[in-house]
Amino acid sequence: MTALPQELVGQLKARFAERFTTNAAVLEQHGRGESHHVAALPDGVVFAGSTQEVADVVTLCAQHRVPVIPYGAGTSLEGHLTAVKGGISLDLSHMTEILRISQEDLDCTVQAGVTREQLNTWLRDKGLFFPIDPGANASIGGMVSTRASGTNAVRYGTMRENVLSLTVVLPNGEIIQTGGRARKSSAGYDLTRLFVGAEGTLGVVTEVTLRLYGIPEHTVAALCSFPSVQQAIDTAIAVVQLGIPVARMEFMDRGLIAAVNAYSGLSLKLEDTLAFEFHGPVGAVKEQVALVASLVQENGGNDFEWATSPEERNRLWKARHSAFYAVVSQRPNARGWSSDVCVPVSELAGCVLHTRELLKGFPVPAAILGHVGDGNYHVVFAVDPSSENELAAVAAINKKMVEKALSVGGTSTGEHGVGTGKIAYLRQEHGKAVDLMAVIKHALDPLGIMNPGKILPTA
Amino acid sequence: MTALPQELVGQLKARFAERFTTNAAVLEQHGRGESHHVAALPDGVVFAGSTQEVADVVTLCAQHRVPVIPYGAGTSLEGHLTAVKGGISLDLSHMTEILRISQEDLDCTVQAGVTREQLNTWLRDKGLFFPIDPGANASIGGMVSTRASGTNAVRYGTMRENVLSLTVVLPNGEIIQTGGRARKSSAGYDLTRLFVGAEGTLGVVTEVTLRLYGIPEHTVAALCSFPSVQQAIDTAIAVVQLGIPVARMEFMDRGLIAAVNAYSGLSLKLEDTLAFEFHGPVGAVKEQVALVASLVQENGGNDFEWATSPEERNRLWKARHSAFYAVVSQRPNARGWSSDVCVPVSELAGCVLHTRELLKGFPVPAAILGHVGDGNYHVVFAVDPSSENELAAVAAINKKMVEKALSVGGTSTGEHGVGTGKIAYLRQEHGKAVDLMAVIKHALDPLGIMNPGKILPTA
Repeated sequence: MTALPQELVGQLKARFAERFTTNAAVLEQHGRGESHHVAALPDGVVFAGSTQEVADVVTLCAQHRVPVIPYGAGTSLEGHLTAVKGGISLDLSHMTEILRISQEDLDCTVQAGVTREQLNTWLRDKGLFFPIDPGANASIGGMVSTRASGTNAVRYGTMRENVLSLTVVLPNGEIIQTGGRARKSSAGYDLTRLFVGAEGTLGVVTEVTLRLYGIPEHTVAALCSFPSVQQAIDTAIAVVQLGIPVARMEFMDRGLIAAVNAYSGLSLKLEDTLAFEFHGPVGAVKEQVALVASLVQENGGNDFEWATSPEERNRLWKARHSAFYAVVSQRPNARGWSSDVCVPVSELAGCVLHTRELLKGFPVPAAILGHVGDGNYHVVFAVDPSSENELAAVAAINKKMVEKALSVGGTSTGEHGVGTGKIAYLRQEHGKAVDLMAVIKHALDPLGIMNPGKILPTA
Repeated sequence: MTALPQELVGQLKARFAERFTTNAAVLEQHGRGESHHVAALPDGVVFAGSTQEVADVVTLCAQHRVPVIPYGAGTSLEGHLTAVKGGISLDLSHMTEILRISQEDLDCTVQAGVTREQLNTWLRDKGLFFPIDPGANASIGGMVSTRASGTNAVRYGTMRENVLSLTVVLPNGEIIQTGGRARKSSAGYDLTRLFVGAEGTLGVVTEVTLRLYGIPEHTVAALCSFPSVQQAIDTAIAVVQLGIPVARMEFMDRGLIAAVNAYSGLSLKLEDTLAFEFHGPVGAVKEQVALVASLVQENGGNDFEWATSPEERNRLWKARHSAFYAVVSQRPNARGWSSDVCVPVSELAGCVLHTRELLKGFPVPAAILGHVGDGNYHVVFAVDPSSENELAAVAAINKKMVEKALSVGGTSTGEHGVGTGKIAYLRQEHGKAVDLMAVIKHALDPLGIMNPGKILPTA
């Protein structure tokens, strides 16, 4: 028995045939992302194939006041996909067309269901790549909607800096373009940036025009281990403060190294570790490497372990990207809970050490990792989802991490988004500005059908 | 006789004493920016000294439904400062405090009236600089509000990428903070980017937290002349497409070189010219210079003219920055009219040549210049403001330039903003998205008091 209005069910069946479903297994699959958040199943799923089809779904749902939850690759970590008020999960994963590319202008337009790995595979023989890399093989639409970033952001920025324009279906079913293909524009309100990070609460992103980059002439990766967290973080801070344009600078604590070794069959040294990547012409890369090597040495780090061949580099980064799954796999039937704070770089060492103190003696498997060039770090916990006590204990640590981050001018989420998981902190972080967010939400979505219960405390 | 309600006049006098004025000369000075747009005088001017004072002015004006036009350094080029519906010009030029700086985190917070030259003078002995440089000595608040960019944007981005957070007085007088000091955040709607480029139509920016950069270890500037526009632009396009991280890459046509020579007492070669600046460690700069030099040669350009000492570089860039005034000074009693389009880089040569055709035989002094690394270029006309025929003829060329830019995926304004000057093109550029901008405007400013008549066709 579905809670959807019978008239809507009939309309969706007529319009989408077998691409509209209320099959229990499909609903189950669409009720959550990859993290600990408890599933809340939608009442139906529509697999859309085009912007017009998305508009048709939204228009019908608006007529019936039924919630719409956009769904991409399902890799959300903060409960974005939970249908907390039921409704239709609008699955864009079939929208995988690459619509256009300009090698001259270094940009392309893709449908929202294209994943970052699909895009980069397609780009490779053109000598181009799209750098934003949150680890998971997320959809581009999902990455837009959470304002994703990841390992390359220290050099290339986040989705905020790398989206040129969007096609968006508004909550009333209208289709708009938020911009053109110029690299910059001062022509009116920045609607592109309004939808980047809006988590599907203001409309559905269906097409995305992205900046691309030439594959660097030269790429070098390096692993470097340290006797202590403090020394590793101090090194990272020095790199940032000297403005060395590293492409990646990732921190992994020794607990994570152990998990990654086990999960990916590696034998990395069991120490607190920084992983670097350098991009550029040969000379510039050499210069960067020499500078970083001297900082590593000054801070008591060990020699670099180099990876210059693509195979070695891929192995290294694949291990880093598997970190979430590596930690979770340490414990049978566990689910991952990833915290996500971002602080000014000068506060990073203090915050990470504060987190380490919180974790001392904590019985749940946990590891610290971070995009430390941005001041962004995570603790991944492998939680027993059936233990309320354990979930409450992790929530308490998460709360202390967030409050510490906010106390030093940081944010409750650097890249995972608010979803349902960070709503409780939004007012603490933004004060009265939250009311302005609510004004905008209400102006764009007066019926409150777009991904309700996400981002805003009252929405 | 002022059109302001007598009660408001009394309230402003009581609150601000001589910092509220209806003096004719002061009104005159506040009724326009630096360009050809016809002045429209406010009914009064308030010189505010703090965010709270700004909030008090806005609150009083809201009570009386009186327009508020934020005013910084007065360097607007698109009519942003014209009081087309009268009201209060809210002058923030006395708000020149630098409130805090973190050399570790490379950020600072300034009051909105701080100018970019003031900021950079203050930063210099700290080894830091703020790169965004629109030419004019604009206020930081004004640069936020027009989403300014200029000569360094090809390397450092625009105000969009370099503002971390804002203090804003909303149209109802409330004060909000749009974010913290973390380099990135996914915590809710991107209110910072909503106010960057909103031209004072959604509220008044009173404090700005900016990203800073270390002064590069090594800086080299170079001038390079070409036999034709096409060859110069082709070179610029090649530099972009190879991803060479030049810090500046400016085009000046031979007409501009003549004007600049006369205005700044230089003797630059009278050819179409590219001006470059390279930032970085010595080795990286050398590598960039060698790459660019070979592209220049391939495209038929002449040898570089180098400027490595700070004095030489300053002289060069001062000349470039004076371009607007140099063109205008060619003709007595003229005013400057600067067009401002931005196109995908692959379309740049076609658009600039199209513009050259439009200018052939045109009797008004005019020169082409551009931040060609971004695809952004201007024609500066020295117009006789008393000649309606002449203004109409320039407007016709401006229209053709904009329509050409829009036809290739570009924008009607790369960096000057919409003001009153580009309103006519907004719907052509954005289609139905303009209605969404109007929804946002109405939601934030239901009384329509904030800088009315700017950006939106009907606001």
